[in-house]
Amino acid sequence: MSKPDKVVPENCIGFALPPKKSQMSYIDAIVYQIGIGYGQDPMNEAELPFVFEMSEEFSVFPTNFSITRGFELFEILVACPGMPNFDPMRLLHGENKVDVLKQIKIDTPYLNVGEIGDVADKGKGALVTVMIKTFEEKDDGTPGDLCIVCSASLFVRGIGGFGYKGKYPQDPIVIPKSEPTKTSSQSTSPNQALIYRLAGDRNPLHVDPNMAALAGFDKPILHGLCTYGISAKQIVQTFAQGDINTLKSIRARFTSHVFPGETLDFAFWVEGNKISFEAKTRERGLVVIVGDCLVNLGPKL
Amino acid sequence: MSKPDKVVPENCIGFALPPKKSQMSYIDAIVYQIGIGYGQDPMNEAELPFVFEMSEEFSVFPTNFSITRGFELFEILVACPGMPNFDPMRLLHGENKVDVLKQIKIDTPYLNVGEIGDVADKGKGALVTVMIKTFEEKDDGTPGDLCIVCSASLFVRGIGGFGYKGKYPQDPIVIPKSEPTKTSSQSTSPNQALIYRLAGDRNPLHVDPNMAALAGFDKPILHGLCTYGISAKQIVQTFAQGDINTLKSIRARFTSHVFPGETLDFAFWVEGNKISFEAKTRERGLVVIVGDCLVNLGPKL
Repeated sequence: MSKPDKVVPENCIGFALPPKKSQMSYIDAIVYQIGIGYGQDPMNEAELPFVFEMSEEFSVFPTNFSITRGFELFEILVACPGMPNFDPMRLLHGENKVDVLKQIKIDTPYLNVGEIGDVADKGKGALVTVMIKTFEEKDDGTPGDLCIVCSASLFVRGIGGFGYKGKYPQDPIVIPKSEPTKTSSQSTSPNQALIYRLAGDRNPLHVDPNMAALAGFDKPILHGLCTYGISAKQIVQTFAQGDINTLKSIRARFTSHVFPGETLDFAFWVEGNKISFEAKTRERGLVVIVGDCLVNLGPKL
Repeated sequence: MSKPDKVVPENCIGFALPPKKSQMSYIDAIVYQIGIGYGQDPMNEAELPFVFEMSEEFSVFPTNFSITRGFELFEILVACPGMPNFDPMRLLHGENKVDVLKQIKIDTPYLNVGEIGDVADKGKGALVTVMIKTFEEKDDGTPGDLCIVCSASLFVRGIGGFGYKGKYPQDPIVIPKSEPTKTSSQSTSPNQALIYRLAGDRNPLHVDPNMAALAGFDKPILHGLCTYGISAKQIVQTFAQGDINTLKSIRARFTSHVFPGETLDFAFWVEGNKISFEAKTRERGLVVIVGDCLVNLGPKL
């Protein structure tokens, strides 16, 4: 397949790969859930459904990307006829959004469709929105109900200048300047990245001090999507007694890195059914993630 | 199959089940290794071969029982024609021994043969030694080199009184009364049992506060074999700069339980190539494990 010299938006937007099957085991779910901090208190029975496969109310946390197992975000960029060749080292996962339409179940077949949702010229690079839609698989092998939409905003440096501003402009994430409505905190453990990576993201940057040094970090860093999952966990804990069914969507921008072992201090601003949030590392005072989410708290709010 | 009314030693000793195939993945190895405490310091490169699958010196810690995956210790008792019926709730794993003849490799086929090594009348019950021998599998499907022998001493309450004192008497584990040669310590994390159980031992006692209460514990307890693996790790770290090839055999008796989050204080006594050890919980001052091991430290000792 010949690749264009620069981004051709009309050959990008809507480009999709064939569906890939996937299925989540109890262990897949538990590893991710321990990875984002469930089970730190052995006497907290409220978290048993997230760490114990025999729990009657066993639950899959909805931001668990391992339901899309085998789906590499950048493979769709490589396959897309509207995308020029690019250096995968120049790709940055800047923002992430998860929409939850229906909870994921264990040992159940799903179909994942990856497509390019949008593309926008940002001068120094292209901002490409890759969406992975996870559908239930019907008995005849075709997609059934849509359950999860994961949208990753990938900034690809070096391929800007094609002049297209995007088809579906998004409201930017804006953190209020007022006092937060609530706060919370969660500590990470020194081996948090080692556990989290077992859920599927095996980038050596999160385990090998030499790879971390090559990337300019003093130590291996925590996965951005781990901080993302921790944020989602803090939101449902702080506002919904841990009820994951209240979380309808969550998006976030990664603004700095977290070292495993640091404590994250969260601030939340509530406005209707929208909760904006940011987290700082207590040790270094840096904002590491900002985001907002839509929740359905019903009469509880 | 009809079962005898009491233990018939000559129908027990040497009874074996057909070989079961097994194979260990990088993830199997890493989960166990994080479970016994590897990777608690993200900058400790010496532990990378135990937590990072791309490490050139990737290693399988030799006490990792998951190479015998699918092998339930008590199934051989149930199948054995010399054993009477018994209540599995009355079975206690009292001692464990691992002999290392050859290191286990990743993604390599092995054959596991389970057999009853010995049986002895202890009055209130029977002490049954179940051995699982792990062999390399040759290309023709037959057993090759013997790599690991795991011997579990199972005390089965309620089936004593058959009068046989055992075919292969073992020297008891004796802890010297002198000052220890060396000491060390290792902390466990509150979620240690949650991680360790992913390696295969899914007994609810280690995760569910209700099951722990039924068994008479205030909280879920750590797996005895986790404390066992921690002991082996401490030995190779304290005496061999972490070189697992020096560990030839290790046996231990579980004397009390550990709560996840407690710190274990180890004492070691060196006598030739034998190292005796015990560990106490710092929080409660109880001895939780006693044992000894044979090491080959070469000119280092």
